[in-house]
Amino acid sequence: MPIGLIGLDADDTLWHSETIFRLTHERFGALLADFADADTIEAKLAEVEHRNLALYGYGAKGFTLSMLETALEISNQQAPTHVIAEIVAAGREMMAHPVDPLPGVRDALETLAQTARLILITKGDLFHQEQKLAASGLGSLFHGVEIVSEKTADTYARAFARHGGRAEDAVMAGNSVRSDILPALAAGAHAALIPYPLVWAHEAAEAPADHPRYKELARLSDLPGWLDELRGNTR
Amino acid sequence: MPIGLIGLDADDTLWHSETIFRLTHERFGALLADFADADTIEAKLAEVEHRNLALYGYGAKGFTLSMLETALEISNQQAPTHVIAEIVAAGREMMAHPVDPLPGVRDALETLAQTARLILITKGDLFHQEQKLAASGLGSLFHGVEIVSEKTADTYARAFARHGGRAEDAVMAGNSVRSDILPALAAGAHAALIPYPLVWAHEAAEAPADHPRYKELARLSDLPGWLDELRGNTR
Repeated sequence: MPIGLIGLDADDTLWHSETIFRLTHERFGALLADFADADTIEAKLAEVEHRNLALYGYGAKGFTLSMLETALEISNQQAPTHVIAEIVAAGREMMAHPVDPLPGVRDALETLAQTARLILITKGDLFHQEQKLAASGLGSLFHGVEIVSEKTADTYARAFARHGGRAEDAVMAGNSVRSDILPALAAGAHAALIPYPLVWAHEAAEAPADHPRYKELARLSDLPGWLDELRGNTR
Repeated sequence: MPIGLIGLDADDTLWHSETIFRLTHERFGALLADFADADTIEAKLAEVEHRNLALYGYGAKGFTLSMLETALEISNQQAPTHVIAEIVAAGREMMAHPVDPLPGVRDALETLAQTARLILITKGDLFHQEQKLAASGLGSLFHGVEIVSEKTADTYARAFARHGGRAEDAVMAGNSVRSDILPALAAGAHAALIPYPLVWAHEAAEAPADHPRYKELARLSDLPGWLDELRGNTR
């Protein structure tokens, strides 16, 4: 099989992201502890985030605005101004957070880039994702970058076509069954799930364990080995 | 001259945007009138927005966060919570604002699309720009959409190349000298300035009045006429 294109998700595939969201959730819960218990706050934030997805899309700026709305609602507009200020500051810190590639990611990408074109395919905030790619130092390993508002089968078909390949000759690798695996398989591509210890509830979905073009890998450094199998190479 | 590609800016070229920002500025000033006079608030907001461009990029979500920061700073964290709530609501309203094409825009685009491929080239928030294009009902007239984090000569060269043309055979049309005109000319394209009555201070720049590939037009419906001239057609 002539696999010539590899799509890679960014957040929680190449670098930590959900960890920072979770830490911010904890900080947010502590700030509002006078108004509700941790579970109530968490449930309200999830509800507000979900309601706002159609207005804000994905990303840290929309998440910050959702935290603010949650704080106002859960406190009946009684949250003191210093709490508001700390939420705004927490949002800024998420956006300015240093970006460190996960262990082994750079080496794996360098290996992969020797036999295929790498395309970063990520959803979220255009500006923040470009910033993170630049900060990661991995940008030069990618042949193309596609920042999209949703990941559908059509998104993948167009992204691979744009970079001169067919979905059938591409592999998509990422940590989200819902965004990286199912739509890439539906487009006709191969798909490798590389689980990250934390999954945002919105992204949870069941893995298609028996799908012939699907593979779960423990880490990105296992992807070159699967490529060898797909290409029918002996090692 | 075989002009085959037309790049079009979105905000304030195809539909109102700055008008809504200005109305929100006024509302913001009124909310903080207890803490400072209108000019001081305006100057502070401009300073915070400018400082935050490198962190938030362009768009309504970043602008909302900048309003919140400004309110906290200018009131020494004394702004009451209901003011914070009204700022968050003002941001939501900007994002949910209906999108109506400017007068004559639809007809002009339909005419232009008969002889060239139209590419929407806009900066700002990926999600919000896609939403606005969908809400405008103009999406099907475009051959491609490029949402970018900054507009540079290189941005234009790549956007035109991606859609099968050279900058030399393209015209860019928009309302910002700084973002639509100067970098498109630097890339080798033609550029038509279609002024909008309001210009965000950040975008202000002097028009290159004598540039041989530059033209100022009163409205988008004048663009087909300029194209005829460039192509050497008699009318």
